[in-house]
Amino acid sequence: MESQGQINGSWAEALIGGLAAAGVARAVISPGSRSTPLALACLRHPSLSCRVLLDERTAAFFALGLARAEGRPVALICTSGSAVANWHPAVVEADLARLPLILLTADRPPELQDCGANQTIDQRGIFTAQLRACHLLPPAEVESDWLVHLAARAVSQSLWPLSGPVQINVPFREPLLAPSSQSAEWGKSGPRVVLPELLPPVAEIARLADLCGDARGVIVAGAEPLPAEPIVRLAAALDWPILADPLSGLRFGTHDLSRVMAAADTFLRGGALAAEWVFRFGAFPVSKPIATWLKASEARQVLISPDSRWADPQRAAEIVFHADPGAFAEALTGVVRRPAPRGWQTLVRTSETSALRLAARHQPPEAGALRSVLDFLPEDGLLFVGNSMAIRDLDSFSGTVAKRLSVLGNRGASGIDGNLASFFGAAASGRYGAAVAVVGDLTFLHDLGGLAAGQGINAVICVLDNGGGAIFEHLPQAGLAEFEAGWLTPQKADFAAAARVWGHAYHRVDADRFDAALAEALDAQGVTILHFPIDRAASVARHRALWAGAQSL
Amino acid sequence: MESQGQINGSWAEALIGGLAAAGVARAVISPGSRSTPLALACLRHPSLSCRVLLDERTAAFFALGLARAEGRPVALICTSGSAVANWHPAVVEADLARLPLILLTADRPPELQDCGANQTIDQRGIFTAQLRACHLLPPAEVESDWLVHLAARAVSQSLWPLSGPVQINVPFREPLLAPSSQSAEWGKSGPRVVLPELLPPVAEIARLADLCGDARGVIVAGAEPLPAEPIVRLAAALDWPILADPLSGLRFGTHDLSRVMAAADTFLRGGALAAEWVFRFGAFPVSKPIATWLKASEARQVLISPDSRWADPQRAAEIVFHADPGAFAEALTGVVRRPAPRGWQTLVRTSETSALRLAARHQPPEAGALRSVLDFLPEDGLLFVGNSMAIRDLDSFSGTVAKRLSVLGNRGASGIDGNLASFFGAAASGRYGAAVAVVGDLTFLHDLGGLAAGQGINAVICVLDNGGGAIFEHLPQAGLAEFEAGWLTPQKADFAAAARVWGHAYHRVDADRFDAALAEALDAQGVTILHFPIDRAASVARHRALWAGAQSL
Repeated sequence: MESQGQINGSWAEALIGGLAAAGVARAVISPGSRSTPLALACLRHPSLSCRVLLDERTAAFFALGLARAEGRPVALICTSGSAVANWHPAVVEADLARLPLILLTADRPPELQDCGANQTIDQRGIFTAQLRACHLLPPAEVESDWLVHLAARAVSQSLWPLSGPVQINVPFREPLLAPSSQSAEWGKSGPRVVLPELLPPVAEIARLADLCGDARGVIVAGAEPLPAEPIVRLAAALDWPILADPLSGLRFGTHDLSRVMAAADTFLRGGALAAEWVFRFGAFPVSKPIATWLKASEARQVLISPDSRWADPQRAAEIVFHADPGAFAEALTGVVRRPAPRGWQTLVRTSETSALRLAARHQPPEAGALRSVLDFLPEDGLLFVGNSMAIRDLDSFSGTVAKRLSVLGNRGASGIDGNLASFFGAAASGRYGAAVAVVGDLTFLHDLGGLAAGQGINAVICVLDNGGGAIFEHLPQAGLAEFEAGWLTPQKADFAAAARVWGHAYHRVDADRFDAALAEALDAQGVTILHFPIDRAASVARHRALWAGAQSL
Repeated sequence: MESQGQINGSWAEALIGGLAAAGVARAVISPGSRSTPLALACLRHPSLSCRVLLDERTAAFFALGLARAEGRPVALICTSGSAVANWHPAVVEADLARLPLILLTADRPPELQDCGANQTIDQRGIFTAQLRACHLLPPAEVESDWLVHLAARAVSQSLWPLSGPVQINVPFREPLLAPSSQSAEWGKSGPRVVLPELLPPVAEIARLADLCGDARGVIVAGAEPLPAEPIVRLAAALDWPILADPLSGLRFGTHDLSRVMAAADTFLRGGALAAEWVFRFGAFPVSKPIATWLKASEARQVLISPDSRWADPQRAAEIVFHADPGAFAEALTGVVRRPAPRGWQTLVRTSETSALRLAARHQPPEAGALRSVLDFLPEDGLLFVGNSMAIRDLDSFSGTVAKRLSVLGNRGASGIDGNLASFFGAAASGRYGAAVAVVGDLTFLHDLGGLAAGQGINAVICVLDNGGGAIFEHLPQAGLAEFEAGWLTPQKADFAAAARVWGHAYHRVDADRFDAALAEALDAQGVTILHFPIDRAASVARHRALWAGAQSL
């Protein structure tokens, strides 16, 4: 008869082996006792790449970054109890950003639930609102072959029809470990799961081509990575401009940039763009002026979404196409015959040019740093951008760059949390020629623990330190007597020491030395933190001057 | 007509004013935009004491520490989105440790839910399994008087019949703020809520006294603060020994310590204690030998729990009294006539004395540090103790001390998370003559972000650095080839730098310099971190020698 430890081991191996067979290549593990069979199976699996991180919040954001960079599900493993709850912030982002995570929560068996046993909480409902599926396993049993199929199912659920987090709760009885454990047979696998191509119906595409022929239209490429080539080809066929969010993937690449606009956040402050049609791809754009324009516009809006959600906070969509964005764009490109009237593209391009010129004139120090990062990043480089002002400054000042760059951010929930760990996870994927994060000081300090995840990775973090939550300087809260204490909240923190905790390099830089320091950091091994203190008042003044100037564009 | 900003302001003021009138004296706020009306009402309230902390996970653990120290509900405020999820680890601990928290989650209004609006998640079900109640408010309206009553209800629910976390979800529409906002009338309050005394029925107590007369019995005082005076008086009346957990509050104080045993973790390794009765108060004890003895014992077990839960992972209780522990002890003391046979108390005391002598002989360096902390802490000092080895070493080596000390730990879920922030919250209550935390290196590094919460507080953190999760050295995982990578997980971290990030003092100490450094740190302003590196192998050997010696006690 098998011992409890052997049963636990085989059970965990069946599950982990099944996940690996179904396409999971990475596991991020936080140390713990109850999770021992799962962690051990991961560490012993011949093809799983494992990373061990102490803080579960950091581990989960790291896994999220990996999943974002690789587009494949990543397994997370932690022990029972509050450990699980530390994953929640990243699970929220994974839900909204639709990133596949397999959440393996080790648990105590039913007889230890709700009776005062140590490190025992109700783990069944903890992520309910965020999950695609939740598999509550029985305590480990002898018969474990079915777990290989369950693993295939879980991986499939994390990818389709709406990718996101899937939980598998795995109770184990003691003893957790067999006195001497052997290595498993890893060959077993569940079914190979084939996901569909999401094609728009031909008749609907033909009708749309008919409707929007000859019209003045705009493509809004929103705040998530989109397939650049088919979208720019559609734009060419329609001769429509593309208002490209900095996270859309359309601003930076070797595709045709001639219709890609990167300064709509500026030129739309000046006045309307009399579009008759808007095609929206991806998440809602970061830019408030684009949102304001869309709200006021009478353009007919078509949304293209590859899953059951669509981003329409203004409830303005007239048609929603559930289709793969690339497939939609290709299908429509194939049948469009009548592009926009001549002059429409030129009109928008003129606004873009004026806006870029104006932005160059009123460029705050943050913009210079961001431009340098775009210049210095090699082909296939990664720029991870923090929320609040970092992403907005990138929106206003990046322009377009004829170089393949990936721009990522935690824009699902747009949280201030876990940005550094997410960045390191993305960088650890090994998919990028180099990796740079640009974040504000509060975003950096919110994720001090995340700096631990940078060990062993080559990466650069630029901290644009404007002494607190500078975004609030642009909001009505700035007028309150309680502004500094309750909203700006400048922190008295030693950034050099923060770097040193985990052995990262640190350089305090100013605008003059930024480029040289960045070039050096990109050549260096390990993590370098470039700390760029910014005169907040001057920066605020420059932003205001730009926006005031934009009014008369 | 009132503007939206004014409506938001009055709504928040009614709610916050109501909470303050119902007894909430503290608010812990994390900066954000959507939460502006709530934060502003807190900051302006004349009697609320506010603390602003950037990282919501830290903020929640800080609030938890305050609630633990003060026994009063603490309000938490954060903005919408993933911010809320960062509270979850502390909410898990608050649930299991039964600590009152009022979770004020600012939210976007219904029309911005599930449509791709920024920083919008489903906040309604996020804490379901942990909450006592969840109030989902409508978006702020003109008529707000009822909120004062709702606040009284929420405070009551956080305290009785099972204290713990209560959520109030508070959606606001834009504009969040009125151009010029006035201060509120704060006088309004809901009903004064009177909670019951939980007395055991007289007949049941008389029956119990009858049953356990003349018997050899033991009182097990578990891992949560208990009323010392009535319990030691009951022990005197029965002439029973008390096996006192280090978190029970019974080991350290000016009450009668003559029947309080602090070395059961050692002497129960040697053999059985032939008790006929066990009265268990509080959470299940930390000690594994106590658990093992209880499981093997044929003693009839009586549990005393003041709420609807009771800690009985072994499912061994014969009678559960739902009553206030102090009231139970007093009632029974009043009717006990026949104490245990002579010699019973002496028998246990002899074991205790031998165990303490043995422990002194095999004392590892951690024990010396803990003893010094107990010696140097002034009357009414606070010792906050981390989980894993710190609490177990305190259990084995503290003995008893005739001085009023509070010993606290996050023993609800026994998590490694948020210990520093919880400690700082307790220290910030101002209830203690001095505050010292003793934690392991992994517990310290797991909560690096929590160090931010120490600013402005006088406190000492002793880090017992045994180079990783030394508790696993005593578990079967220690035999694995993957032991160091997956379980011990020693961290390459610079503790001095970690201290410096937030301006805390740091001293690396050894056994010889520990006492002097501790004395100095207790006199110093601000936070001092005493970093005590420990030879793990030597410490493991001493623990093993003690336990081996204990076998023959």
